[in-house]
Amino acid sequence: MSDGGDDGNRSYGHKKFKRSKSHFADRITADGRDGWPVAAGRYRLVVSRACPWASRALVSRRLLGLEDALSLAVVDPIQDDRSWRFTLDPGGRDPVLGIRFLSEAYDRREAGYPGGVSVPAVVDVPSGELVTNDYQQITLDLATEWTALHRPGAPDLYPRALRDEIDTVMGEVYEDVNNGVYRAGFATGQEEYERAYEGVFRRLDLLARRLAGQRYLVGDTITEADIRLFTTLVRFDAVYHGHFKCNRWKLAENPVLWAYARDLHQTPGFGDTVDFDHIKRHYYQVHTGINPTGIVPLGPDLSGWLTPHRREELGGRPFGDGTLPGPVPEAERVPPRGRP
Amino acid sequence: MSDGGDDGNRSYGHKKFKRSKSHFADRITADGRDGWPVAAGRYRLVVSRACPWASRALVSRRLLGLEDALSLAVVDPIQDDRSWRFTLDPGGRDPVLGIRFLSEAYDRREAGYPGGVSVPAVVDVPSGELVTNDYQQITLDLATEWTALHRPGAPDLYPRALRDEIDTVMGEVYEDVNNGVYRAGFATGQEEYERAYEGVFRRLDLLARRLAGQRYLVGDTITEADIRLFTTLVRFDAVYHGHFKCNRWKLAENPVLWAYARDLHQTPGFGDTVDFDHIKRHYYQVHTGINPTGIVPLGPDLSGWLTPHRREELGGRPFGDGTLPGPVPEAERVPPRGRP
Repeated sequence: MSDGGDDGNRSYGHKKFKRSKSHFADRITADGRDGWPVAAGRYRLVVSRACPWASRALVSRRLLGLEDALSLAVVDPIQDDRSWRFTLDPGGRDPVLGIRFLSEAYDRREAGYPGGVSVPAVVDVPSGELVTNDYQQITLDLATEWTALHRPGAPDLYPRALRDEIDTVMGEVYEDVNNGVYRAGFATGQEEYERAYEGVFRRLDLLARRLAGQRYLVGDTITEADIRLFTTLVRFDAVYHGHFKCNRWKLAENPVLWAYARDLHQTPGFGDTVDFDHIKRHYYQVHTGINPTGIVPLGPDLSGWLTPHRREELGGRPFGDGTLPGPVPEAERVPPRGRP
Repeated sequence: MSDGGDDGNRSYGHKKFKRSKSHFADRITADGRDGWPVAAGRYRLVVSRACPWASRALVSRRLLGLEDALSLAVVDPIQDDRSWRFTLDPGGRDPVLGIRFLSEAYDRREAGYPGGVSVPAVVDVPSGELVTNDYQQITLDLATEWTALHRPGAPDLYPRALRDEIDTVMGEVYEDVNNGVYRAGFATGQEEYERAYEGVFRRLDLLARRLAGQRYLVGDTITEADIRLFTTLVRFDAVYHGHFKCNRWKLAENPVLWAYARDLHQTPGFGDTVDFDHIKRHYYQVHTGINPTGIVPLGPDLSGWLTPHRREELGGRPFGDGTLPGPVPEAERVPPRGRP
């Protein structure tokens, strides 16, 4: 999603924060029924490493070993009034799509589209058209439709037998946590903020209880539900605690959730996608409505992310019958300043 | 001091944050050499419970048992454009001074004084004139000039033999910590913020090392130096961590300083002066330049303030040869919503 910097910010000065639905909801499927068949090398995934919604796709792509099949474009964490930019690339252009702004792919798909430009976005390389910005569907399709291109040993992130339970957990986590922190942070009134805050911590308390005795949210392996909780938890102390006022406690003060988040962070495919520098700069510099100075805090101390978590003692088989993902492609490594 | 809401805020939009010097620096002394002799019932101490500088005087007055000799006025934590107000009192007037705004006592002392109105302030009741707003001197004089009115068993908060060391420690704490958090919070540029932040945490690290093996900052009893460090530490997680971006860690994550602060908080005369509700509402609602929504965070969870600290194991004699202060006068009790 636009991460509040765009759709979010527009809403937030004026009325209750409401996350926009994705407008472009075509699906890339094995059978190509929407006109977009799964194909190696045809599509480009555009993400911001700052954005929790886009970061889901970064994790899925790594866990499933889709790096070669689905190429990656990373935008600048700071949008300008033209939204997400390829200013990190030489000449300020995405080297594959040849565009300077993600909005150009939106325009190719639907000229004059008046909605927000958001990540994650999947772009059809031959036509340069946006295919989908449906952040709720993209990762599910990577897990279930792109199977022919998965690496050998890729885990099943959305196992059929557990889908009802996964969907239920993800629904609760979305409402109260993934989006709850935004409703708290972009609230324009005290009451709206307090309702969101209470929802965040009520749900986190329940999740901590659930995770006290089991290593992962559903079943005994990593699933899509863990990915979606992780992308919020990894941002918690860095931005949601202070900037979004979700400050009952820091994640680092909650023994169960902190260990759970560190366990995932230290699992290949999770932490190696996270750029704390992009995260902090995006939130603190883009949301001038809640941080007018644009000053980016130096904290928190991130070294704790690398400490032992001892979650192995709970059992669990991270990748089920599968195997660990390989190393991060050289070109996609997060620079040291973004890492703990 | 005005706590940034007044002098502070004025500076902060325009230039580097600089704390104003107190303009009214007359001293109330045993010999009355400035025209203001120590006398029971003659003066009124005006404080905001939000303000760390004023809170020093609240603690000293309690420890020394000066409640009967020096009466207390508590202002509303939220200033308006006329600065500190007596809006908590019936009819919006201080019942002893009969004024609605603290500025009226300033005006009686010096008509048309163009500077800021700050707390702590000591007002001469008969004339209604401000005597002093010298936050650095007021507590030292309570400790050393008001001795004839101290309670039996009052501690020596500024013992002659240790003054050099106390002054040195207080100087470092003032520069890097007491005022350092303000320089971080009111910085208008990244570099200015980072310099202040580094100073805060460098000094806190040194203080934690010092306090790891000794219960109090100087000697083996509570001194003025502890009071001055306490009034900043007690605000750290509630406001400085998030609002002022001093977020390397929460106080609650630093074992030594957190135990030290809890020890003092649980000592009669310290925690019983603290109103977390006033603190949070003041900082988050007055500093609209850094919190434009005025939303006051619900966190942090304050229950940890009441947990065992085990600092007794370090030895130390909190009140030296003296005794604990008595209970808080009924009229001065902090309401439940302001307490952990």
